[in-house]
Amino acid sequence: MEQNKIPQATAKRLPLYYRFLNNLHHQGKLRVSSKELSEAVKVDSATIRRDFSYFGALGKKGYGYNVEYLLGFFRKTLDQDELTEVALIGTGNLGTAFLHYNFMKNNNTKIMMAFDANPDKVGKDIGGVPIYHIDDLEKKINGVQVAILTVPAAAADGITNRLVDVGISGILNFTPARITVPDSVRVHHIDLAVELQSLVYFLKHYPLDTEE
Amino acid sequence: MEQNKIPQATAKRLPLYYRFLNNLHHQGKLRVSSKELSEAVKVDSATIRRDFSYFGALGKKGYGYNVEYLLGFFRKTLDQDELTEVALIGTGNLGTAFLHYNFMKNNNTKIMMAFDANPDKVGKDIGGVPIYHIDDLEKKINGVQVAILTVPAAAADGITNRLVDVGISGILNFTPARITVPDSVRVHHIDLAVELQSLVYFLKHYPLDTEE
Repeated sequence: MEQNKIPQATAKRLPLYYRFLNNLHHQGKLRVSSKELSEAVKVDSATIRRDFSYFGALGKKGYGYNVEYLLGFFRKTLDQDELTEVALIGTGNLGTAFLHYNFMKNNNTKIMMAFDANPDKVGKDIGGVPIYHIDDLEKKINGVQVAILTVPAAAADGITNRLVDVGISGILNFTPARITVPDSVRVHHIDLAVELQSLVYFLKHYPLDTEE
Repeated sequence: MEQNKIPQATAKRLPLYYRFLNNLHHQGKLRVSSKELSEAVKVDSATIRRDFSYFGALGKKGYGYNVEYLLGFFRKTLDQDELTEVALIGTGNLGTAFLHYNFMKNNNTKIMMAFDANPDKVGKDIGGVPIYHIDDLEKKINGVQVAILTVPAAAADGITNRLVDVGISGILNFTPARITVPDSVRVHHIDLAVELQSLVYFLKHYPLDTEE
C-alpha cells in the first residue's frame, strides 16, 4: 500500500474503528459523526478527527462521515480482503477461549490450526480448528505467518525458537515470559498480570476527572 | 503518594520493570545495567533511562542500577504492600485462565471471588477462588474495587451497570463489547480480536528494521 506512515497509536485504533463502522453498516446507517464514533469506541472526538486526517480528507461539518466510504477505506487499509492465517500454540483455557472467539466475524484473520502436547487433545478440534501434536509443528505449519502463544511460561522460549526457525513473522505472546526473537519477527505481548497491575496502578495514581 | 505525575506510557511499563527486578533479586543479583534491563524487558535502553529519570536520579555510569534500591522504590510506587482485591465475572475459558494464573507471585492483586450464571459452577472453586451466583453479586462483592469482566459480550452492559451501582472503581474488560461507565470508573479494554488484528496490521505496514 502506498499510504503514508501513520503513528503507531493511530494504527492501533484502526481495528476498533473498523469494527464499529462495520456494525453501523449492518444496521443500515449511512453516516456517522465523530461524536457518535467517539461515544461508541471510547476515544475522544479530537483524537478521532486527527486519526482520520492521516488518511487524508474524510468528514464534512454538520454531516459527519460517510459510513460506506469509510468502511471501504478501512477495509482496504486493514487488508480485510486478504486472509491472514494464524496458528495457535497451547490449547489450555486461554488458548481454548481464543479458539471459541469468532475472529472471522469482522476481519480476515483465521486460526487454521492449533498445537498441544497433550495426547488427549491431539486429533480433536475446538471451534472447528484441528489440534495437532506440538511435535508436528514443523510438518504442519506450512507457511502460516502469525502465531498466538498460549503455552505455559516455561515452554515459551523453546516454542518461540521453533516458530522462528519455521519462518513465522509475528507472535502474539500471551504468556508471562518475555521472549527473544530476531529483529525480523514482530512480537506483541499481552501479560494478564501486567494488565491487571497497570489498571490498579492507574486507579491509585491517576484520578479520572483530569483525563480521558 | 507525592511523586510527580509520570507519563502514562511510563506508568504502563512499571509492572514489567518490577517483575524483572524481582526475579533478579531472587537470583541474588545486586546491580543491573540499563542494557541488561533492556534485553530482558524488550524496551530500548534510552526509554528505560528516560522512564527512570521521572522518578528522580537512579543509575550510575559504569555501575548501573542498584537492584535492591530500585526494587524498594518500585514496590512503594506500585503499592506492592497494599493488597487490591479483585472480583472476576464470568468463569468461561478466559475467566478460568485468569483464575489459574498466579497473580500473587509478583504483586499484591488478588482475585477474591468469581461469579457465574451457570448453577453447575456455583459453589465450587477454581484455583482456590470461590464461585458465587451472579444473582448474588451485590450481596457478596462487599467493597471489592476492581473487576475483571470475562462474560459473553451480550452480558457485558448489564453486568457493568451492576458493577457501577455497587461502587466498583476499575474494570478490566476482556469482552469484545465497548462498555459505558461514569467518568469516575476506569476501564481498561483488551479485545483479543483487536490485538490479533493490530499485530497483523503492523506486520503488513511497519517493516521491522526501521523501528523498535
